[in-house]
Amino acid sequence: MLTVLFADRIENWPAYEPALTTALAEAGIDAKLVLPPADPATVDYIVYSPRGPVQDFTAYTRAKAVLNLWAGVERVVGNPTLTQPLCRMVDEGLERGMVEWVTGHALRAHLNIDFFLSHQDGVWRQEGNVPPLARDRSVVVLGLGALGGACAQTLAGLGFQVTGWSRTQKTLPGVTCLSGAEGLRAALSRAEILVTVLPNTPETTDLLNTETLALLPKGAVILNPGRGNLIDDDALLAALDAGQIGHATLDVFRVEPLPPEHPYWAHPKVTVTPHIAAETRPASAARVIAENIRRFEAGEVPLHLVDRSRGY
Amino acid sequence: MLTVLFADRIENWPAYEPALTTALAEAGIDAKLVLPPADPATVDYIVYSPRGPVQDFTAYTRAKAVLNLWAGVERVVGNPTLTQPLCRMVDEGLERGMVEWVTGHALRAHLNIDFFLSHQDGVWRQEGNVPPLARDRSVVVLGLGALGGACAQTLAGLGFQVTGWSRTQKTLPGVTCLSGAEGLRAALSRAEILVTVLPNTPETTDLLNTETLALLPKGAVILNPGRGNLIDDDALLAALDAGQIGHATLDVFRVEPLPPEHPYWAHPKVTVTPHIAAETRPASAARVIAENIRRFEAGEVPLHLVDRSRGY
Repeated sequence: MLTVLFADRIENWPAYEPALTTALAEAGIDAKLVLPPADPATVDYIVYSPRGPVQDFTAYTRAKAVLNLWAGVERVVGNPTLTQPLCRMVDEGLERGMVEWVTGHALRAHLNIDFFLSHQDGVWRQEGNVPPLARDRSVVVLGLGALGGACAQTLAGLGFQVTGWSRTQKTLPGVTCLSGAEGLRAALSRAEILVTVLPNTPETTDLLNTETLALLPKGAVILNPGRGNLIDDDALLAALDAGQIGHATLDVFRVEPLPPEHPYWAHPKVTVTPHIAAETRPASAARVIAENIRRFEAGEVPLHLVDRSRGY
Repeated sequence: MLTVLFADRIENWPAYEPALTTALAEAGIDAKLVLPPADPATVDYIVYSPRGPVQDFTAYTRAKAVLNLWAGVERVVGNPTLTQPLCRMVDEGLERGMVEWVTGHALRAHLNIDFFLSHQDGVWRQEGNVPPLARDRSVVVLGLGALGGACAQTLAGLGFQVTGWSRTQKTLPGVTCLSGAEGLRAALSRAEILVTVLPNTPETTDLLNTETLALLPKGAVILNPGRGNLIDDDALLAALDAGQIGHATLDVFRVEPLPPEHPYWAHPKVTVTPHIAAETRPASAARVIAENIRRFEAGEVPLHLVDRSRGY
């Protein structure tokens, strides 16, 4: 019998315990779920999150893998005590949540919904306020991994002109795919709505800065459900104040919870959502965990194994 | 050479004149576009809108058809001077606009976007505010014509549980289709988000009334981009005040522009948009007009011919 340690926040145990029990049984795995402080020397697999109680893996000498519950691995990939294989979470529930958040906020910008919400004053403002069709609106998605690719394809399916950019060249039906430094400049220059779904790596840090924000069409809208490090916050605030950027809806931040005194909260052109775009859902995430344990036990290639040289 | 009368508001002529000229040429039709007051006895086709200058068709003895620029025909179908065939507009641009408005406002409700917009106060409210996935949200579309069917299928493509209801039974991939009086009760009882895209007919007038609104799940959200007559306004206001209906976003009204003193404007649970969901777009609408003139001239069955006994 395998021993699987649940090393996420204890608040999540009531949701994950039944989900993992079901998923492990369905995958045909004989396993016992344990909570910290279980004896580290008995643990075969660590179900991990950066907010959980286990951040030093030294004593887990028997563990065959660390299975992250989060899509992002930036808080663990450089951990010097981590010697086990590390897997990211690519949860179909998380992906759907991300697609829904991105599509909803893209349509909110496209349809100018905020304008109507703030003008419920008895004046019928039809003239000049019929939005263009999505086919006349250019949306750019930075990052074409599982999440970014799903967002790009959904937006293209709604009729938007979608350009996607990734570090290495990708091909996606209905999406104009660009890559590399020149591709990034070309992508930014056409982004009426810009969606950032890149991982947190040294290369992506401050990708949106004074120089790159200036490449966007004037009045562009930014949606960031990706990572807080992607944006130079001071540069974004300056670009919003200057009118270069029309609005930003941000779900992720360098420090979370976003401190109450942060200028994003009070800025009239910023909407803060509290890291809700891509929540891991217990039922679907537990199936990914169980499938990976099955793969490790069978000597098969695991899902979503992190390449530490790339950092994701 | 045919004579085509443009009998919409003169404000729309600058957009329609080039669009119709192009579309007629592309359809191979030798036609002259004229404006009122052209001699009625010389007119072969009337491009019509309920807001235009021609509402008495008596003198148009030569006209072979009245081609409505609007999807709705309720303002003309009962006109006793109308003896010519009448066609509705089913404009692909109008359909896309309707789909985008419906999808955007459905996602706005689904993601609870208004809540976040009104709580930009420095408090990080993640706990309990992660929305469910679309697959756990039931959306009902009343009306499965060209517009309603397109809305239902787009919402289903985003993962929503979609039920559609129509007078006569339809079949749409990915959509649970219901019809008839019993079907309507079943549809309403599961509508967390209700979208009304029915035509304006005597049967649809006050379809949403005190009795039917009570069938909806408590806190349901209503989106009406269809027709103002579908809703008993007093019943909706009462249901909103009682908490039975959580929110209504309304794009169409019995009287438009909606008068400044109408209680919808000031109601905290109502969003008014100024009839922008389904605007006819000149380029695509002109192609439909030209194709119908071609069909009439060739003796073929015209597109979207109105059945006056049904009223649409």
